[in-house]
Amino acid sequence: MRAVRYYGKEDIRIEKIPEPECRDGMVKIAPAFVGICGTDLHEYQGGPNFAPKHKPHPVTGETVPITIGHEFSGTVKEIGRGVQDLAIGQKVAIQPSIFCGECGACKNNVENACPNGGFIGLSGGGGGLSDSVVVPARAVLPLPPNVTLQVGALVEPLSVAWHAISASPLTPSSIVLVLGGGPIGLAIVQCLRARGVGKVIVSEVSVARQAFARDFGADHVLDPRNHDLVATSQELSNGEGPDIVFDCAGVPASINTACLSVKPRGTVVNVAIWEKEIPFQPNMLVFREAKYLAVLGYQKIDFEEVINALGSGALKPSKMITQCVLLENVVEGGIKTLIAEKDKHVKILVEVAS
Amino acid sequence: MRAVRYYGKEDIRIEKIPEPECRDGMVKIAPAFVGICGTDLHEYQGGPNFAPKHKPHPVTGETVPITIGHEFSGTVKEIGRGVQDLAIGQKVAIQPSIFCGECGACKNNVENACPNGGFIGLSGGGGGLSDSVVVPARAVLPLPPNVTLQVGALVEPLSVAWHAISASPLTPSSIVLVLGGGPIGLAIVQCLRARGVGKVIVSEVSVARQAFARDFGADHVLDPRNHDLVATSQELSNGEGPDIVFDCAGVPASINTACLSVKPRGTVVNVAIWEKEIPFQPNMLVFREAKYLAVLGYQKIDFEEVINALGSGALKPSKMITQCVLLENVVEGGIKTLIAEKDKHVKILVEVAS
Repeated sequence: MRAVRYYGKEDIRIEKIPEPECRDGMVKIAPAFVGICGTDLHEYQGGPNFAPKHKPHPVTGETVPITIGHEFSGTVKEIGRGVQDLAIGQKVAIQPSIFCGECGACKNNVENACPNGGFIGLSGGGGGLSDSVVVPARAVLPLPPNVTLQVGALVEPLSVAWHAISASPLTPSSIVLVLGGGPIGLAIVQCLRARGVGKVIVSEVSVARQAFARDFGADHVLDPRNHDLVATSQELSNGEGPDIVFDCAGVPASINTACLSVKPRGTVVNVAIWEKEIPFQPNMLVFREAKYLAVLGYQKIDFEEVINALGSGALKPSKMITQCVLLENVVEGGIKTLIAEKDKHVKILVEVAS
Repeated sequence: MRAVRYYGKEDIRIEKIPEPECRDGMVKIAPAFVGICGTDLHEYQGGPNFAPKHKPHPVTGETVPITIGHEFSGTVKEIGRGVQDLAIGQKVAIQPSIFCGECGACKNNVENACPNGGFIGLSGGGGGLSDSVVVPARAVLPLPPNVTLQVGALVEPLSVAWHAISASPLTPSSIVLVLGGGPIGLAIVQCLRARGVGKVIVSEVSVARQAFARDFGADHVLDPRNHDLVATSQELSNGEGPDIVFDCAGVPASINTACLSVKPRGTVVNVAIWEKEIPFQPNMLVFREAKYLAVLGYQKIDFEEVINALGSGALKPSKMITQCVLLENVVEGGIKTLIAEKDKHVKILVEVAS
């Protein structure tokens, strides 16, 4: 079968490899659409970071080359012994989390923080960018009939946003500031709208992304180069500051803006992964008794809730798909296009079906 | 009347000043015992920091010299018009918070984060180190008959600890790590014991303070110079890490230890005020989905709950009082002794009664 294999920095190859076997408790999926993620770009441009290079991944036992693609939908191709409630041909989304099941985090149902964790399509265990992938039954989530396979590939990034919002004290009257209008910031705007929110303010430099933010439901879109974000976001929230700030940028300027603008006893939710240590003054939080919540990835419940919201029509994210390319074109049309024209795109999907 | 007046760095004078008038809605207190606080030492050694120097304090309108002493008990000397439920001679503790009542924080009942806020005895409005001080009726909290005036002077530092614990998700089985065994760290140990806790681990360098920590109820006292705190605190908490870490040290090493040792989805409570920006890597929180809560001071409810716990005997803090000096000796016997022999003392009280 075809598989898109990651070998290391700027080395992705489309190869023929043997089709994996569907063991007991597993499900063989024929991937349909695969989203390309910022993490994929980082691996391509400077990795391996996530992908296991020398040391085999503690759960999958694999090292590079690995098959990539962790944001994907597909159809059920084969059902392993002991797996129930699935049918051949059924449309599904895949929750790609890998975890050890034995550590303190796993035992406390915080398996998304498992120190041995990873993702199908990043850590071994196959990936969405192939004709077949075998995954544990728990990873397979049926899509409602009215949700397309294209939209099914968006469940993963939407679940990152959904998980971050679930950790926050959102109420229907909350005033929320979102720092950064990239794919995750835009997913947060949409999920906030789907769940009910008082007001959404987005800060974003790129004009193209500002337009996406408006399209996806932001009430106010501010360019941080032209606005004193702390002052303006406070003006837009009765002079008190936003109830919740989502930091999807993860740079010194964004953490400072988040901590200085949030209202007394408000909540900053960090959705970013940080490249390095930054200068930080905790008094920014102290003098307003604010909370700083860090979130990481998602859990199965986030996928289930996103799929429910897609089924009910509360979430209508299809405009996130700004381009679709064929598997053969994944590097040039997908990865390289996203690197070169980052701001013009929210999500490029790769169509796997040959 | 006598008053201990702060003029600036290393300049505290005991002077005779006119006795203040007791206006409507106010209560005149005869201070009995006054605790000397770390903030007093900072003001003496390097201030004015809190004390208004050039610009009058926005609420009191005063600048230095000001009367100091903000941790105090006393007896009711005179009751202003419109004040109810108090009797002349009654033993009370004073909640010294000053706030504007008009800002966003005040309107949201977070008056402890009022940007115009301050403290009686630090920001003008008189102070405990004098023969009389006139305070708003809301600041006056009666002490139960079985609580001494000496212990009444401990209500303020205990309330700092109580407030921090109330912000945390403490349960009777929580495993808690306290970083720093100074007066506030030790107050937290005692308040945790009073409220019910599974296990208390304290990290402290000073041998004298280690002994206090054991006395006040710590189950394990670790010297961070001899222990890998992250590893040891995790061993002491079923390999998962403490549920809650209180950072009472406020230095780069303590914030790192706090963030790296706390269990997945655990809570770091920052009780420190920070002198300057520090290097910080938010991923420490991200990779365990941890929360970082900042708290500031206290509110009236904290004083009320501490006084209830003192009355019921749940809190028995009298061993915190390691020395008592007369008002005339406040600088030599109080402030300078605390600076020179910091580790030997938890709390030095000044006896005001002449």
